[in-house]
Amino acid sequence: MNLKPNEIERKVYRNMASHFADRLCDAVKKRKTSLIVGIDPVYSRLPKAIKSHRHMNDEYDADAAVDAIFDFCTQTMRIIAPMVPAVKINIAFFEKYLWEGIETYYALITEANDLGLEVIGDVKRGDIGHTAELYAAAHLENPELAGLEDTLAPDAITINGYTGTDGIEPFAKMAEKQGKGLFVLVRTSNPSAAEVQDFTDAQGIAMYEKVADVVARIAYEPARIGKSGYSSIGMVVGGTAPEVTTALRQKYDKTWFLVPGYGSQGASAPDCVRFCKPDGTGALINASRSIIYAYEKPKYKEQYGDDWKRCIEQAVIDAKVDLAGAMQTLI
Amino acid sequence: MNLKPNEIERKVYRNMASHFADRLCDAVKKRKTSLIVGIDPVYSRLPKAIKSHRHMNDEYDADAAVDAIFDFCTQTMRIIAPMVPAVKINIAFFEKYLWEGIETYYALITEANDLGLEVIGDVKRGDIGHTAELYAAAHLENPELAGLEDTLAPDAITINGYTGTDGIEPFAKMAEKQGKGLFVLVRTSNPSAAEVQDFTDAQGIAMYEKVADVVARIAYEPARIGKSGYSSIGMVVGGTAPEVTTALRQKYDKTWFLVPGYGSQGASAPDCVRFCKPDGTGALINASRSIIYAYEKPKYKEQYGDDWKRCIEQAVIDAKVDLAGAMQTLI
Repeated sequence: MNLKPNEIERKVYRNMASHFADRLCDAVKKRKTSLIVGIDPVYSRLPKAIKSHRHMNDEYDADAAVDAIFDFCTQTMRIIAPMVPAVKINIAFFEKYLWEGIETYYALITEANDLGLEVIGDVKRGDIGHTAELYAAAHLENPELAGLEDTLAPDAITINGYTGTDGIEPFAKMAEKQGKGLFVLVRTSNPSAAEVQDFTDAQGIAMYEKVADVVARIAYEPARIGKSGYSSIGMVVGGTAPEVTTALRQKYDKTWFLVPGYGSQGASAPDCVRFCKPDGTGALINASRSIIYAYEKPKYKEQYGDDWKRCIEQAVIDAKVDLAGAMQTLI
Repeated sequence: MNLKPNEIERKVYRNMASHFADRLCDAVKKRKTSLIVGIDPVYSRLPKAIKSHRHMNDEYDADAAVDAIFDFCTQTMRIIAPMVPAVKINIAFFEKYLWEGIETYYALITEANDLGLEVIGDVKRGDIGHTAELYAAAHLENPELAGLEDTLAPDAITINGYTGTDGIEPFAKMAEKQGKGLFVLVRTSNPSAAEVQDFTDAQGIAMYEKVADVVARIAYEPARIGKSGYSSIGMVVGGTAPEVTTALRQKYDKTWFLVPGYGSQGASAPDCVRFCKPDGTGALINASRSIIYAYEKPKYKEQYGDDWKRCIEQAVIDAKVDLAGAMQTLI
């Protein structure tokens, strides 16, 4: 827990670019990839080496379970930190452990930050007015509470935009104030996404395009555009719907896309890299289970045996090569 | 904290009706009102009597702040429990205090349950597949974690349905299994709601109607309909859009509507009671700030001085009379 190899680099780096979109650009260029890793820890899938080291191997003991999860996630992040620009930490996997889980979620944000990673809190919050302001404070503002001065909120979060402009603005204002970012759900990667999000008006405009339009109006306010030319307010668009990709990329050239679905959810590298610009910026392509549980796959298991860390490392390398290859074809 | 006046009554009552929609029906008939109270506690607005009793009067000390908030909310719930069927506890007001806040949120659910109130967790979660299952477990399943056997999840939660059927189903399945309920966001009460939710297709069908349709298909599965004829899967429809009320009430006769917007957000009693059936069931009309901060209003302050509890009590009585009067006109 005290190993903080990139701490000094991190601080300099923060000072050089305090705008979230600019930090992302720097990080993607430095790591030479748009791949990011989703931290979705499930106790029952943790490597035996982690579970057997715990003083209690019991998923019904919240203390023991979150200790094991914290250990696994920090070790995983140490492996991947030199190779990818960001992690996406999914808070749902922590809420299951109630307040113990939330404490662990925030502890991991600090760890990830110390490792030089940009941190996206996948929280999918959304509400109106004062409630949206409170969610924004909880999830984007570094706490000012006594004793919690070292606790950090993520660099960016995911939110749901169903309530329209006045539900998104409180989050955007807080992000702007804190040099942080947002990714608003536009088109998700699940089978039923089309049902609601492809609902189409008389002019042939789909719901997700309408939401993208609302988000872009908020994102394109000049103060929200960084030196890199990108806004700190981005969109979540699933890699499993490649038919929507090219149009959105062309229409919103100042937008970062957070692209779930690569790997276990079935989106291919060519499907996903279509969100990237030729220089490789503009999209974060997320893989979760296919990376963090790589040690379950025969392909890696046969080669590296019980060395679960080596399996994860190789899965990141393979995914980066896969995406880089698809980029070559694209250009 | 040990005052549990309705505990015995509560247990009998639970055994009589283990289906959420049936419990709601019983509770609304027993309290003779569709009014529910929203618990949205803001430290700076707490009565002086609460803040000055704390060992630390400091909103930047999470411990002191959540202690004061817990004290205020439990005292408020004791006043209102004999008068209303349910409370809606908004988790955003607790997330601001990170894990300390989440612990307080769950502690209040237990208090509310012991007071015989149905408890709606206003959490507005929403995601896809496995993540939706995890949110459902965190927010609807009573925890099976060691040491937390007495901790309860709410009787129902609010969720966001933007991801469509396969994002809603994991919540519906968990609700069904636990005898609990859901309220899916259909039409919210904020000024920008129309922007996204009134987006209309070539046949003149609005987005919120499409979402209502998706929700109704899930809600109307026979196992989800109770003896009362209502489904445990309801909808959130703001009282500030009365033009949509009558049509939804007529179309979905098995649906409970959770209606925000009454009171501080500007919806009138006649706007809201249109969601009720003639027997008074079918809608929960929520008032938050206009009740729990009644002691800030000159109207009550002048009459009851510093007796903040009496102010809250009178505000509940006045709101019940207001809604009952509007119901008379309607019938």
